Amino acid sequence: MAETTGKLKLGMVGGGRDAFIGAVHRSAAWLDGMYELSAGALSSTPEKAKASGKDLGLSDERNYESWEQMLEKESARAEGERIDAVSIVTPNHMHFPVAKAFVEAGFHVICDKPLVHSSEQAEELVRLVEQKGTVFAVTYNYTGYPMVKQARQMVRDGALGAIRKVIVEYNQDWLATKLEDQGAKQAEWRTDPKRSGIAGVVGDIGSHAENLVATITALELESLCADVSTFVPGRALDDDANLLVRYRSGAKGLMFASQISAGEENDLRIRIYGEKASLTWHQENPNYLRYKPLGEPEQVLKRGTGYLCEAAQRAGRIPPGHPEAFIEAFANVYRNAGLSIKALKEGRTPDEFESDFPTVADGARGVKFIEKTIESGKSSQKWIGL
Amino acid sequence: MAETTGKLKLGMVGGGRDAFIGAVHRSAAWLDGMYELSAGALSSTPEKAKASGKDLGLSDERNYESWEQMLEKESARAEGERIDAVSIVTPNHMHFPVAKAFVEAGFHVICDKPLVHSSEQAEELVRLVEQKGTVFAVTYNYTGYPMVKQARQMVRDGALGAIRKVIVEYNQDWLATKLEDQGAKQAEWRTDPKRSGIAGVVGDIGSHAENLVATITALELESLCADVSTFVPGRALDDDANLLVRYRSGAKGLMFASQISAGEENDLRIRIYGEKASLTWHQENPNYLRYKPLGEPEQVLKRGTGYLCEAAQRAGRIPPGHPEAFIEAFANVYRNAGLSIKALKEGRTPDEFESDFPTVADGARGVKFIEKTIESGKSSQKWIGL
Amino acid sequence: MAETTGKLKLGMVGGGRDAFIGAVHRSAAWLDGMYELSAGALSSTPEKAKASGKDLGLSDERNYESWEQMLEKESARAEGERIDAVSIVTPNHMHFPVAKAFVEAGFHVICDKPLVHSSEQAEELVRLVEQKGTVFAVTYNYTGYPMVKQARQMVRDGALGAIRKVIVEYNQDWLATKLEDQGAKQAEWRTDPKRSGIAGVVGDIGSHAENLVATITALELESLCADVSTFVPGRALDDDANLLVRYRSGAKGLMFASQISAGEENDLRIRIYGEKASLTWHQENPNYLRYKPLGEPEQVLKRGTGYLCEAAQRAGRIPPGHPEAFIEAFANVYRNAGLSIKALKEGRTPDEFESDFPTVADGARGVKFIEKTIESGKSSQKWIGL
Amino acid sequence: MAETTGKLKLGMVGGGRDAFIGAVHRSAAWLDGMYELSAGALSSTPEKAKASGKDLGLSDERNYESWEQMLEKESARAEGERIDAVSIVTPNHMHFPVAKAFVEAGFHVICDKPLVHSSEQAEELVRLVEQKGTVFAVTYNYTGYPMVKQARQMVRDGALGAIRKVIVEYNQDWLATKLEDQGAKQAEWRTDPKRSGIAGVVGDIGSHAENLVATITALELESLCADVSTFVPGRALDDDANLLVRYRSGAKGLMFASQISAGEENDLRIRIYGEKASLTWHQENPNYLRYKPLGEPEQVLKRGTGYLCEAAQRAGRIPPGHPEAFIEAFANVYRNAGLSIKALKEGRTPDEFESDFPTVADGARGVKFIEKTIESGKSSQKWIGL
Repeated sequence: MAETTGKLKLGMVGGGRDAFIGAVHRSAAWLDGMYELSAGALSSTPEKAKASGKDLGLSDERNYESWEQMLEKESARAEGERIDAVSIVTPNHMHFPVAKAFVEAGFHVICDKPLVHSSEQAEELVRLVEQKGTVFAVTYNYTGYPMVKQARQMVRDGALGAIRKVIVEYNQDWLATKLEDQGAKQAEWRTDPKRSGIAGVVGDIGSHAENLVATITALELESLCADVSTFVPGRALDDDANLLVRYRSGAKGLMFASQISAGEENDLRIRIYGEKASLTWHQENPNYLRYKPLGEPEQVLKRGTGYLCEAAQRAGRIPPGHPEAFIEAFANVYRNAGLSIKALKEGRTPDEFESDFPTVADGARGVKFIEKTIESGKSSQKWIGL
Repeated sequence: MAETTGKLKLGMVGGGRDAFIGAVHRSAAWLDGMYELSAGALSSTPEKAKASGKDLGLSDERNYESWEQMLEKESARAEGERIDAVSIVTPNHMHFPVAKAFVEAGFHVICDKPLVHSSEQAEELVRLVEQKGTVFAVTYNYTGYPMVKQARQMVRDGALGAIRKVIVEYNQDWLATKLEDQGAKQAEWRTDPKRSGIAGVVGDIGSHAENLVATITALELESLCADVSTFVPGRALDDDANLLVRYRSGAKGLMFASQISAGEENDLRIRIYGEKASLTWHQENPNYLRYKPLGEPEQVLKRGTGYLCEAAQRAGRIPPGHPEAFIEAFANVYRNAGLSIKALKEGRTPDEFESDFPTVADGARGVKFIEKTIESGKSSQKWIGL
Repeated sequence: MAETTGKLKLGMVGGGRDAFIGAVHRSAAWLDGMYELSAGALSSTPEKAKASGKDLGLSDERNYESWEQMLEKESARAEGERIDAVSIVTPNHMHFPVAKAFVEAGFHVICDKPLVHSSEQAEELVRLVEQKGTVFAVTYNYTGYPMVKQARQMVRDGALGAIRKVIVEYNQDWLATKLEDQGAKQAEWRTDPKRSGIAGVVGDIGSHAENLVATITALELESLCADVSTFVPGRALDDDANLLVRYRSGAKGLMFASQISAGEENDLRIRIYGEKASLTWHQENPNYLRYKPLGEPEQVLKRGTGYLCEAAQRAGRIPPGHPEAFIEAFANVYRNAGLSIKALKEGRTPDEFESDFPTVADGARGVKFIEKTIESGKSSQKWIGL
Repeated sequence: MAETTGKLKLGMVGGGRDAFIGAVHRSAAWLDGMYELSAGALSSTPEKAKASGKDLGLSDERNYESWEQMLEKESARAEGERIDAVSIVTPNHMHFPVAKAFVEAGFHVICDKPLVHSSEQAEELVRLVEQKGTVFAVTYNYTGYPMVKQARQMVRDGALGAIRKVIVEYNQDWLATKLEDQGAKQAEWRTDPKRSGIAGVVGDIGSHAENLVATITALELESLCADVSTFVPGRALDDDANLLVRYRSGAKGLMFASQISAGEENDLRIRIYGEKASLTWHQENPNYLRYKPLGEPEQVLKRGTGYLCEAAQRAGRIPPGHPEAFIEAFANVYRNAGLSIKALKEGRTPDEFESDFPTVADGARGVKFIEKTIESGKSSQKWIGL
């Protein structure tokens, strides 16, 4: 565990009262004692922003009424006094303007996913980050799990041989009814095209599935064929999506995501089949990775053990059998982003372990995936009648 | 358990030395003491047929050299002396001629799946069976499991509400290498278009997946979109297939089947999502059915308990916790087919429980599914490039 | 799979209408086509015996009114015509007189457990069987499971190192209420000291637990300390028992068995901890054996695979992933007993695989275990107050 | 989630470099942003203490060389400036002197378990805490899990009826070899009677098992019978213990704990059997609670859902399917202790939810359990020979 002196100063945009993901970001930031909350523009209205900042013990002067105000005032502070990084935990439509402005001003950014609303925006951000040399982490938090890092290493090491097939799925049920009509703020903005973007389930959780495959396997999507549906009448965005995919290497795959799958909570799973073996991982019981070599007993690899790769070992905090879970995985994005920020502050290039977090490039690839999935979903020429 | 006096006389075509499924059919037939093996034409060559029949203790006179000989001689025997039914457990290409001839001669038939090679053949058999009024069971054995029958009843009873999505999958790895070049008879004929038909994995196990959905949900396929692949170089038939499907009711689904998924044994699973709840069943641990109502605790229903529906209770033999498995489920097809044959012999129409087995109509629908899947797999216009 | 010509002729004592275990014995006997039911004295009253035999299709002349009649008449038949073996599936109190008489007359015996009511009876049977040289199998059916045989081999091969600790448990709930007052025949005799013997749960299922440990590990009990309870008011025998045990090798252990553990069905489990590794097996999901070597990934060994020992491979019938279960394991006792009977008929000594079934000596050791557990349960000097 | 303004000032004794549990305490304290580390005496030597405090960013003036110094200096600070509470995370032998001194000085205490070395010490602490009216939490962290709180409520609500049997077990393997000879600091002190006390495994993890039963069921131990062993040659304390227990209510139970059970990581499990139903919970997959009512389907209750009791809901931070684990449960002890401290600072009595953490009385009961178990383990009159 990397407890470190000299806490990083974090500003936060969004995440005030009624928000869900902001609190998760804060727990993730606090867990290792690496960050302190120094400033915030925590909600979209000045009153709610101030009230939320007060809840969290922000000093009055750094409890801002808007992100624009925070950007201006923090930029004006002396180096060493200003925030080191900003967390962007707003609804999706605010990611782009906020991220762009803070990167331009030279701040490091930790941004929720999906990154932005269009590939144009994404590419602009990618260019900007490259130009500024800042840290830009995207909280594809599921790839922060130690056993995901272990899976990635085993694929890299050839334990599976050439990959033939990947099945990734993400099943939820929280939008199985028209929750957005019942005053549920999370449901409201996530089903609203203005705030969520062109996609519902595809953007919200399909993008996690895409990122999980890309992170573990490094396979590149060549083409896809999607059936994108809205099951709940009157809903403005998709709530179920099923895809056939092909990778440039010749591997094939399935991706499916749903928010109307009754009885499923946060059922993200991946199965990777190679010529020699397969790997299976399930987010709801994340401390285990199943490795099945052809013709040999299945193996269950466990978090916290000495036989894991270094990245997986570093991503854990406690011994095996003491389960780590969602917040710890989320915190791994914050920790490695923080270690990279510290490295830059010390004038060094972050090493491979410090750099082990999803970047703006992952975010941009995810946006493209969303666009193509929605495009394919609108095409109907793929069907053969019975 | 239905132990019964007066065993049915069974003839068998195929299933001799080196065969796999024939021995399973026999265990299934023996389990409840309802059948005795009275005649056989157990292999495609006279010598092997005779040797196989000797292994199984057939009398010389009814240990036939060919199915044609068996048909002729058994037809010539007096009623009460001749076989009641014939089991057809040959490679697929023999199903049609053998089944047709025995049905025409008025024998009851229990035939392995997939039924035949084409919809034309299938429709001819359907008409013939209807005309003759004989029993014709197709050993879609997985729908013989008690918990599959329970799932079917719960769908019928509306426990799930309208069905929105069905995910069915069947993953194996036994053809992950080119086993057909290594003297493995099962692999040889199953990858040979002459004997297996137009499909490999789609016919061998995809058809089980299709049957499982149809049996439990009664949903009718409207259209499908398939990615059908051959991963093992030089293989003559498909070994992996992934499908998007749409049902006439508006439900959507995924079907996928593979024989190259390293580390998977006989991994047939189904998940059925309705408006109100979902059901999950897994063939490898078949005594449990998971029922997940929205907003309530998940329930695990167990074979052998008093709260199951009558069809599920009748399909079990022993108390809960004493697991029943593959052979018992297979035997349920034989048992109900046998009960139907007995009913007809007694001059009665079989009741709904006696009739509870897959029929020639199920077989015909399966053949159509195979044809359409292969057709869709050949079309490439469905893909959107990235 | 060992399908064989020349079926063995089986007689059965007990197992008529209303019986549970008799039907299981028959399914086990039929499964491999190795036995045919030639004679029976299927119930304790002549009327019910005859009616039960009729149900099962026994010929009138060999459908006996009593076991004494069956013994007399079958003994009088010519060799080759008389039954080869007798299955004793009565309540416990009849095991001794019936088994003694048939062994004395030179018949092979397959007897349910617990063997008899006292160590004196057990030792007499052991002597008699040795003297007569007949086959005597006791249906400790759980040790018929392939993965139990695999566990036994791994212990023998030293995969665990010296064994330190064994936890075996057998939890049920079917006697959680006073079922014996509600007309349930199984509950009636099993809670009746006259028929069941000195023990309830300890004899009925505790003896299975004892046999499982002994079979897998070959550890010999040195001493035990038991808490034996009757939770259901008015019940005449114990329904819950918890034991600390010590083995001669220095290993320690826990054994516990219960028929009042609400929600448990047939929950027999064993965990064996050695210096180097452990093994875990669970009867309710019996196709898997978990092997956990110190400091390495857990392994899941699966029935039907090529890496299992020969005894485990022979004990299976179908490929991996096609689950086998309770009846198949039970049938393995019948199959190996049958193979031994055939070997003796052919004038040969059965080999190690043919001899792989629980014998009268296992039965006798089980009876001693029951006696000592009940004795310890009555002693109260073990308790330290708080 | 209770993020709160006005962080509590925490001092820490122990938990410096090389320590394990200190870092866990800190993560637990930081997670909800409720505490800040204001002072510390982090190791037993001044040099190491100072270096450790520097690692953690303590100010020089409050980075103490010894706990005595910390006590003196912090006591001298003005109210509002001094630490609110002290975390005691030293080896066991230091718990008593440190806790006693800080309670006497009026500080709130959060102390690791087992509480102290003897019942005399424990009772003295209980009296002192009562007299001072301070908060005293003992980090029996496993009872901080939400599903443990749910189990407790269901028992209280009578969902199980009268409890008949409780099986609690805690299996580990980290001391399966003589780790204490290999420079492992955790192993060294935990197997050293001077620092660990009279018990090894019984104190280290057996006490967690005892606390889990007491917390969920409120059953009071009446008597026990223990087999306490040391398997690793040369080890100074016990590494395996198996107990039969009896509760005052008439319920019976088993408790077993081991640190030599090869392949087990942190395998704490409990099964509670009542007249009407049972509950099962497993620490390694802690977000699920299994409820098995007699004659009905098993239910799986899940963390984060709306049907849980209030204490369970308050103990969670994120939605269902987003697993929470060890650190979050540990943090629940800190959070509720912190809420109680805040309540007292505000002049109010903490409510039932704020008071929901293990207290000095739980700690004292645990010490008595340890003493009696060791006493019973030394008695040999309980054994019946075979």
